[in-house]
Amino acid sequence: MKELVVLRIGHRPRRDMRITTHVALVSRAFGATGFALEGGVGVLESLERLLGNWGGKDSFSLRSVESPKTFLKEWKASGGKVVHLTMYGVDVDSKLPQIKDLGDRIAVVVGAGKVEKWYYEIADLNVAVGNQPHSEVAALAIFLDRVNGGVRGGQFNDGRIRVLGSEKGKKVIMV
Amino acid sequence: MKELVVLRIGHRPRRDMRITTHVALVSRAFGATGFALEGGVGVLESLERLLGNWGGKDSFSLRSVESPKTFLKEWKASGGKVVHLTMYGVDVDSKLPQIKDLGDRIAVVVGAGKVEKWYYEIADLNVAVGNQPHSEVAALAIFLDRVNGGVRGGQFNDGRIRVLGSEKGKKVIMV
Repeated sequence: MKELVVLRIGHRPRRDMRITTHVALVSRAFGATGFALEGGVGVLESLERLLGNWGGKDSFSLRSVESPKTFLKEWKASGGKVVHLTMYGVDVDSKLPQIKDLGDRIAVVVGAGKVEKWYYEIADLNVAVGNQPHSEVAALAIFLDRVNGGVRGGQFNDGRIRVLGSEKGKKVIMV
Repeated sequence: MKELVVLRIGHRPRRDMRITTHVALVSRAFGATGFALEGGVGVLESLERLLGNWGGKDSFSLRSVESPKTFLKEWKASGGKVVHLTMYGVDVDSKLPQIKDLGDRIAVVVGAGKVEKWYYEIADLNVAVGNQPHSEVAALAIFLDRVNGGVRGGQFNDGRIRVLGSEKGKKVIMV
């Protein structure tokens, strides 16, 4: 995937701060190329610091988006495609062939709270990870796992901190 | 899996309310048989209501745990095994054979904030979903996906609400 940007819409700064942070961290760890957020500059600042420590400044972009609708219209006008993650959509595993057919520039819309009908309409695909209520964080992780082939091991070469997976306890290297 | 209980430890009622709720919802949607929480009775009450609406009262148990250490000691004494999800552990995909060898009664420990060394020691396996910082919600979803074979479609027969996945918009049935 040349460009796979996760667009978080409807972020409510106080209420959604931690969930939105998890959405952003999952985006990075599971190989998206960027994270775009409607509002919530505070979240982006703390993510910038994380990229400094853990890496990703050269491979993962962060941006604030004033109007997600304008963002998506321009994205589509320039040839990009849009996937909207929603529990009301069609299950990701049955949609994998169509997702792969979308090409190599995809924006993944992840809502907080109720999502306007407009997004269902502009999306090329409305994709669910099961049709039960659970979590946009989990849905994004499974989506990226299926589309991108799993979590990235530890290949953020510009990071200062690295974890070596171990049987017991913690092994952390400061580069 | 006969019994697969997710044990959420270290829950801080105000700070972790929504993340813990997502952990519980992922447990249910991805086929765990129960969710146990250290503290946080308010979260359990709202989950009880969700089970009434969406189903799972007969297949998914909720409980509050006063001492997670006592819970895990008794679990192990009765033959159960323990998996601790941690970004410092060994990647889940390489550990799948060992996880399957643990048998059919597994408690999955999901921490909030810093986790005491004691849990790393009592765990039969310390398992990571990548060694990058992301989200316990995502880690649990991927773990259950690998171990349980994906999200449950919609087989909570006692629920009153059902979603039919659709290409555009929302299709909801009230039973």
